[in-house]
Amino acid sequence: MIRDRVDAPLGVFDSGLGGLTVVRALREALPHEHIVYLGDTARVPYGTRAEATVIRYAMACAKHLVHRGVKAIVVACNTVSAVAPTTLRVELDLPVLGVIEPGARAGVAASRRGRIGVLATAATIASGAYPRAVAAASTRAEVVGQAAPLLVPLAEEGWTVGEVPTLVVRRYLEPLVTADVDVVILGCTHYPLLRATLDAEVSQLLGATTKVVDSAHAVASEAKDFLGERGLARRTEDGGSIELLVTDMPKSFADVASRFLGHALPEVEVVDL
Amino acid sequence: MIRDRVDAPLGVFDSGLGGLTVVRALREALPHEHIVYLGDTARVPYGTRAEATVIRYAMACAKHLVHRGVKAIVVACNTVSAVAPTTLRVELDLPVLGVIEPGARAGVAASRRGRIGVLATAATIASGAYPRAVAAASTRAEVVGQAAPLLVPLAEEGWTVGEVPTLVVRRYLEPLVTADVDVVILGCTHYPLLRATLDAEVSQLLGATTKVVDSAHAVASEAKDFLGERGLARRTEDGGSIELLVTDMPKSFADVASRFLGHALPEVEVVDL
Repeated sequence: MIRDRVDAPLGVFDSGLGGLTVVRALREALPHEHIVYLGDTARVPYGTRAEATVIRYAMACAKHLVHRGVKAIVVACNTVSAVAPTTLRVELDLPVLGVIEPGARAGVAASRRGRIGVLATAATIASGAYPRAVAAASTRAEVVGQAAPLLVPLAEEGWTVGEVPTLVVRRYLEPLVTADVDVVILGCTHYPLLRATLDAEVSQLLGATTKVVDSAHAVASEAKDFLGERGLARRTEDGGSIELLVTDMPKSFADVASRFLGHALPEVEVVDL
Repeated sequence: MIRDRVDAPLGVFDSGLGGLTVVRALREALPHEHIVYLGDTARVPYGTRAEATVIRYAMACAKHLVHRGVKAIVVACNTVSAVAPTTLRVELDLPVLGVIEPGARAGVAASRRGRIGVLATAATIASGAYPRAVAAASTRAEVVGQAAPLLVPLAEEGWTVGEVPTLVVRRYLEPLVTADVDVVILGCTHYPLLRATLDAEVSQLLGATTKVVDSAHAVASEAKDFLGERGLARRTEDGGSIELLVTDMPKSFADVASRFLGHALPEVEVVDL
């Protein structure tokens, strides 16, 4: 499929549906762009797989998007962003943005004292990807990572405000309070759904000057700059379209997906990679 | 490997580590039996896979246990128990016990009014396996299923008592209160870790006469009867041994595994299926 490069869609992929929060942020930053989202729902989660397997799965997703004629790819998956962007860039000869580097850069930019906390899944924290990305952006910043495994099921259940998420968030913030961080990076695509609770508790426990940075908005902002600089942004007043592709249609798909996307779903196509 | 059939170990497998709660229940019911446990930690969770894939994975686990000379197999995985026991029995020519049927039978036996609630993962509830198994055990019992996705990460985090698990359990019990059940089946191998909180809240919300039945103890009790009836129980005063096999060694393995097993881990072997 050959399309005019400027009018071609942005490709976004994730192991599952969490990456739809990145689509939501991209829609806000780039309302005129077409977006094709691919969620590899048949093989979610990637976080527990071997690195070689993650790279193989990521390559299959990316190649499918290339086949759909995308002009650039946003990897909306922390696990893939931790291990695969370089391989994807080399193999595909296409611009590839991951979520971790923009999140780390936004964290460094927002920090006055260079003390950066990261909330993410156990797999992302264990990968060391955020400390590496922060070190690449600043020689003086320090990173304190905290695995927060309950936040993903809370977001998927839609339990995003109230007593339970508040208590859970407080517990995960405790080590960041002890470490006296001045920025908290949300290093998982699910966490923007808990943003109201996270903002309130960070402000309460770490002070109102402590900033919350989410990697979905950070990558959307970098994607906007990137398309502008390279003359790849669509020049039109039209709203862009969204295409939604998944490799499997799990039972609660529509509920979870629309919660992440923030509005009703477009038509969904099931694809085989 | 040929061993004397009576002295041969029981094989137990699960997609991950949750099945160690079944090992714990088997140790209590059958302290003289040797047990070989296989956790397919490289491919956990099975709940999101297609049925044919689950059967293929289950067959690979079961064949590995047969190769180790087991005298019978306990499937300590609700997902596999929902789709594979018959195939395993036919293909392996070995006694195979799943967790769902014993759990359903114990639920029916404990119920006076035939109103049975089931807490389980979203995949197990969606499979309809408990209503089918209860219908096979009783024509008059009714089943109300409630997916409880937060209970697995709470158990894995070790947040088993206190404010957060109490509030979460209360919320999941609400529909069972409305449905006026008189038995609650714990249909997931992770839930026995939350037993104290579950017992307290069931008693509080559903009344002290409402019984909690866990499928781990139910299958252990049926395994005991089964070995006794067939003359397969070990006749000795020795304590049995435990061998632990996994297909991958995840980062927090030792912590999580010893929490499920209830004591320090034996030596662990990584196997390739």
